[in-house]
Amino acid sequence: MSGNSFGRLLRFTSFGESHGYAIGGVIDGFPAGHEIDLKLIQSQLDRRRPGQSDLVSKRNETDKLEILSGILDGKSLGSPIGFIIKSKDSQSSDYDHLENVYRPSHADFTYEMKYGMRDHRGGGRSSARETASRVVAGAFANILLREKKIKITAYVEQIGEVCINKEYKHLEFNRIDKSQVRCPDVEIEQQMVELIKKTAIEGDSLGGVIFCVVEGVPAGLGEPVFDKLHADLAKAMMSINAVKGFEIGSGFSSVSMKGSEHNDVFETTESGISTTTNRSGGIQGGISNGEDIYFRVAFKPVATIMLDQNTVDKNGNPVVLKGKGRHDVTVVPRAVPIVEAMAALTIADHLLQNEISKI
Amino acid sequence: MSGNSFGRLLRFTSFGESHGYAIGGVIDGFPAGHEIDLKLIQSQLDRRRPGQSDLVSKRNETDKLEILSGILDGKSLGSPIGFIIKSKDSQSSDYDHLENVYRPSHADFTYEMKYGMRDHRGGGRSSARETASRVVAGAFANILLREKKIKITAYVEQIGEVCINKEYKHLEFNRIDKSQVRCPDVEIEQQMVELIKKTAIEGDSLGGVIFCVVEGVPAGLGEPVFDKLHADLAKAMMSINAVKGFEIGSGFSSVSMKGSEHNDVFETTESGISTTTNRSGGIQGGISNGEDIYFRVAFKPVATIMLDQNTVDKNGNPVVLKGKGRHDVTVVPRAVPIVEAMAALTIADHLLQNEISKI
Amino acid sequence: MSGNSFGRLLRFTSFGESHGYAIGGVIDGFPAGHEIDLKLIQSQLDRRRPGQSDLVSKRNETDKLEILSGILDGKSLGSPIGFIIKSKDSQSSDYDHLENVYRPSHADFTYEMKYGMRDHRGGGRSSARETASRVVAGAFANILLREKKIKITAYVEQIGEVCINKEYKHLEFNRIDKSQVRCPDVEIEQQMVELIKKTAIEGDSLGGVIFCVVEGVPAGLGEPVFDKLHADLAKAMMSINAVKGFEIGSGFSSVSMKGSEHNDVFETTESGISTTTNRSGGIQGGISNGEDIYFRVAFKPVATIMLDQNTVDKNGNPVVLKGKGRHDVTVVPRAVPIVEAMAALTIADHLLQNEISKI
Amino acid sequence: MSGNSFGRLLRFTSFGESHGYAIGGVIDGFPAGHEIDLKLIQSQLDRRRPGQSDLVSKRNETDKLEILSGILDGKSLGSPIGFIIKSKDSQSSDYDHLENVYRPSHADFTYEMKYGMRDHRGGGRSSARETASRVVAGAFANILLREKKIKITAYVEQIGEVCINKEYKHLEFNRIDKSQVRCPDVEIEQQMVELIKKTAIEGDSLGGVIFCVVEGVPAGLGEPVFDKLHADLAKAMMSINAVKGFEIGSGFSSVSMKGSEHNDVFETTESGISTTTNRSGGIQGGISNGEDIYFRVAFKPVATIMLDQNTVDKNGNPVVLKGKGRHDVTVVPRAVPIVEAMAALTIADHLLQNEISKI
Repeated sequence: MSGNSFGRLLRFTSFGESHGYAIGGVIDGFPAGHEIDLKLIQSQLDRRRPGQSDLVSKRNETDKLEILSGILDGKSLGSPIGFIIKSKDSQSSDYDHLENVYRPSHADFTYEMKYGMRDHRGGGRSSARETASRVVAGAFANILLREKKIKITAYVEQIGEVCINKEYKHLEFNRIDKSQVRCPDVEIEQQMVELIKKTAIEGDSLGGVIFCVVEGVPAGLGEPVFDKLHADLAKAMMSINAVKGFEIGSGFSSVSMKGSEHNDVFETTESGISTTTNRSGGIQGGISNGEDIYFRVAFKPVATIMLDQNTVDKNGNPVVLKGKGRHDVTVVPRAVPIVEAMAALTIADHLLQNEISKI
Repeated sequence: MSGNSFGRLLRFTSFGESHGYAIGGVIDGFPAGHEIDLKLIQSQLDRRRPGQSDLVSKRNETDKLEILSGILDGKSLGSPIGFIIKSKDSQSSDYDHLENVYRPSHADFTYEMKYGMRDHRGGGRSSARETASRVVAGAFANILLREKKIKITAYVEQIGEVCINKEYKHLEFNRIDKSQVRCPDVEIEQQMVELIKKTAIEGDSLGGVIFCVVEGVPAGLGEPVFDKLHADLAKAMMSINAVKGFEIGSGFSSVSMKGSEHNDVFETTESGISTTTNRSGGIQGGISNGEDIYFRVAFKPVATIMLDQNTVDKNGNPVVLKGKGRHDVTVVPRAVPIVEAMAALTIADHLLQNEISKI
Repeated sequence: MSGNSFGRLLRFTSFGESHGYAIGGVIDGFPAGHEIDLKLIQSQLDRRRPGQSDLVSKRNETDKLEILSGILDGKSLGSPIGFIIKSKDSQSSDYDHLENVYRPSHADFTYEMKYGMRDHRGGGRSSARETASRVVAGAFANILLREKKIKITAYVEQIGEVCINKEYKHLEFNRIDKSQVRCPDVEIEQQMVELIKKTAIEGDSLGGVIFCVVEGVPAGLGEPVFDKLHADLAKAMMSINAVKGFEIGSGFSSVSMKGSEHNDVFETTESGISTTTNRSGGIQGGISNGEDIYFRVAFKPVATIMLDQNTVDKNGNPVVLKGKGRHDVTVVPRAVPIVEAMAALTIADHLLQNEISKI
Repeated sequence: MSGNSFGRLLRFTSFGESHGYAIGGVIDGFPAGHEIDLKLIQSQLDRRRPGQSDLVSKRNETDKLEILSGILDGKSLGSPIGFIIKSKDSQSSDYDHLENVYRPSHADFTYEMKYGMRDHRGGGRSSARETASRVVAGAFANILLREKKIKITAYVEQIGEVCINKEYKHLEFNRIDKSQVRCPDVEIEQQMVELIKKTAIEGDSLGGVIFCVVEGVPAGLGEPVFDKLHADLAKAMMSINAVKGFEIGSGFSSVSMKGSEHNDVFETTESGISTTTNRSGGIQGGISNGEDIYFRVAFKPVATIMLDQNTVDKNGNPVVLKGKGRHDVTVVPRAVPIVEAMAALTIADHLLQNEISKI
């Protein structure tokens, strides 16, 4: 009940602090009899880990997935899938200077207000390291989606003020993972890389936007009036560290359109009834309509910077927080698999829920 | 499980179709012993109803709240609060021409795909009429909030391209309900009214943005890692009809800021530790930090317009949908109490959840 | 969250106090497209109501079901089914003498301890009147079961010390509702009637046992390790007023059997694999095995008696509680449809849950 | 959602197959700031493990608890507590002969019907080994209970037909763990031991009854109408392997009592209002009344016996299942800590829930 589970029928429970013995999770409700390709799941985990390029965090650690239960002879048993990712021997003493300091725009202060204590080592439970477990759970969810020909693709659309100005349909998705910033537009990618390098030198950090599209979702997913498909997607995305905004389809830009400009007109084609445009983003009345589902997720700039900052300690005394250590200028490229994972968990959960809507 | 309940400890279940016998709800988990001012609750309901001004829908119906259970001698019993709002004798025959037609950007098509049938009268379950029950439930939640000195205020910040360009702190909130478009900025209000009138003549519709601020929330609310306070607010807002986007604090604008510009620096004042700025929007790491919580909600233009539109019928045959009947040019002013209600339900639920975080 | 909802996918929320405006409920998750025979549902409700025979309570009130939502043209819409049963104009003043008194073995004291207040009129929320809503919800669940050829039958096996000593297979179920005590064994029925009449004269009350069998449940229902089918049945039954015990299959009698006597041996017959005996009661490892599911439910004697009793008032002062009014000597015959209803809700919910176990 | 979580606010999720890499669990909702004595928790785990006496299973394995998260410097963090118990290198080949056979009154057949496959090694997920995780979770719950002076004690009341005929108040609880069958009545204990030895020689198995009492529960716990305290206790107990029956207070014996004999009369003593008798078992109307809560749990004889049994294989062909290996004649003594654990989880969860009933 304390907020560490996600999903209703496909239910993922996450645990673990950044510098504890291990992080991990339990996936309950994963149907029996599905082939589980653990290498594929590990490869998703690798997409999230630090040290993938020159631009992101310099540590070269490997997150190694260990399955504890729920799989036999390469197939899901229908029982809960437990897994862990052990922590490397990290130098927790690196964090001693933070034990009594509230870092600006981090969760130090709020965790301490809520729980009366906190694990200060590497951010503890509030660390983005927790999202590694989400990537694993999402990779399991993706097994169910792949079988239904549902495909989720996310990429970096914007970093700082550098932004792709093409629609997703005009981009080459196979370029995404070849790009060190996961931006499929070559020209923009170059500008992003330059901006990141420049900002690194300044000791500052950057935010960005991740665009995500889900192709192949059949009509009918979503449980109005509260568990609308896009409402659950919004919650999924807003639960990711550093996310400040979410929009589906036309999103905030719909505000300045008129109804006659915004409405998606129905037509009949060979493959059945569809819409000529897709400003709805594939969801109408909270239920998927068979068109592509697409949405944007806004990430604020990383709170950890290399510049000195004023703040206070536990006793309220002013302190200057020195920038040190090695940190990502932006988390956005590494957040791409996390966005995909949370989308996969949401869509797969709704797939199961929809099975019983007209049984 | 089918998505008609909201909240975990303060749990609201909604039921009812637009033109059925009644809509209503059940609030379970409302603590015992609180004084219930039913007139205050009815007055909230009145804020949402049609026919409040020249600009919005012309019907002059009254939504009358009837309490079925859970209250004795003006106090909550601790047992579930059941309530209904009966439908007026509406002319369902008005909707006969829609029985077999899929209106563009409405939920007709998706409901039929999901459930194999739908109540076509007035939108059935997908109608915004359902939100009247939310306003009632939110008004109950507000009783708990008021006792804790928590205050929720929403207003119309933007309609079409007409937008307030002042911060919420510089606006007079007592003007909101005096404004027929619920815009507290007199000058902008006038422009909005003109835009609405002009668009009404064109037979078209408009979207908008609602800004909402929650004052007085103590530090500690929110249940990471999934049930973060702003993640639950996002879901609450995205579950409202016609909403396409949500942003908390700096939101999408954070994307083009640097960390050094965006971070909220802690300081100690007379009243304790606080932040000098509030780009976080009162939530850090998913937990409230004691500052104002504020967010924006984007509404698309109303799908129902007075212009003819191409669409298809159930059999996929092309049809021209004639614009007729009387409809709001924009729902945004009437959505203000709905946004407040969903915010109240979310915050009150988290208040209860937080009671046991360090018991 | 406060305990007024039952079920996970087929989710029933109950509300209402005994002497409030109405009792009722909301059924969420009922699949779309099923034909709803409201007369059949009303007839189930009639089986529970007081005044059905000379033996039970003398009031002759009718509980009239009113449907508020979720059904159109005789079919379920997939949206929540809201319903109410209005209270008759009851003389609440009859209960004035109980306002400050704690009746022995009633819930007066505990409700007041928990909620700080209570509705003393007719027992308020703790009254068995609430179970009328359960009977309605169970009748809806039964619609799903009937379509799958699943049949639930309960009857009175014991009242006081008078007990049927035949197995259920040797009883004529069509006699149950012809019997004023819902006992299908003619000879035992006569003894029960005599015992009840005699106890009525004494001003005392009686307990009993209800036996229930569910025929036609396919193998596979139940969600180990916690939501085992018989664990959920146990909870369902123990949630009924006055229930003190539950046993499945061989139950408490299994304790003095040896493994070699108790084990159900598998065999192959024309219709597939089955067991030669059924001491398991149709459930093994928490999952149905295709055999009949049967269980027993123990009801204590009614707490309200016509004899004077010592007790205390709110202030702890000793009081003599005078027996007055008209009350059932035993609730067991009227509890038969309640047991069936709770069984139906449990089995139907598990039917839906099992749909996704190996999807 | 697939049934591997227990509790609402204190929520325990269990995972693991008997012969998998590890079993374990996650406890979410455990409040922050409590001192955690891991040795005490390990000692509870030791009470459940095989090989504790001559009478029970002969293997001498140690279940070693490993904490993965949620605890720092000996205190709970408020974040989820993850833990595992690794499996010993067991000889899974011992189970090869069971891969295609359905053992009588085991879960082999039903798991295969439900999931289309099963882990046949040592019973897989249906093995009682899973209950080791419950004992750990219960020991954590007990930390909360001890702080509130709530004490849970269970003991073996009956094995086969040998039964204690004293009330729990007349037994010496400190004898329980000194007894190899966890029976506090010395004379009866001796008879139980003899019966077990005799039955072992016969190659057969025995059932029994566990009695459990919870002392010190304050009035007010329980969430009517469905989540009544004894309803949740019933579910908790019925979810334990081999349990066939549950009764609270007077239980099945209440059936043959009259109301005037059964009612618990209120009186005022120095310590406040209490009842002179306690046939209610400490719960009235689903809510604790401050008296001792006591209940009985019936366990069937162990399904695994050393005698040959007829059964069928996967293809429905008749097979003779040879009794071999080493197994407990009865699980009842080892089930005592499991009953206590499930009681602790239930009571602690309700303690938290009740915190918000009249906030």
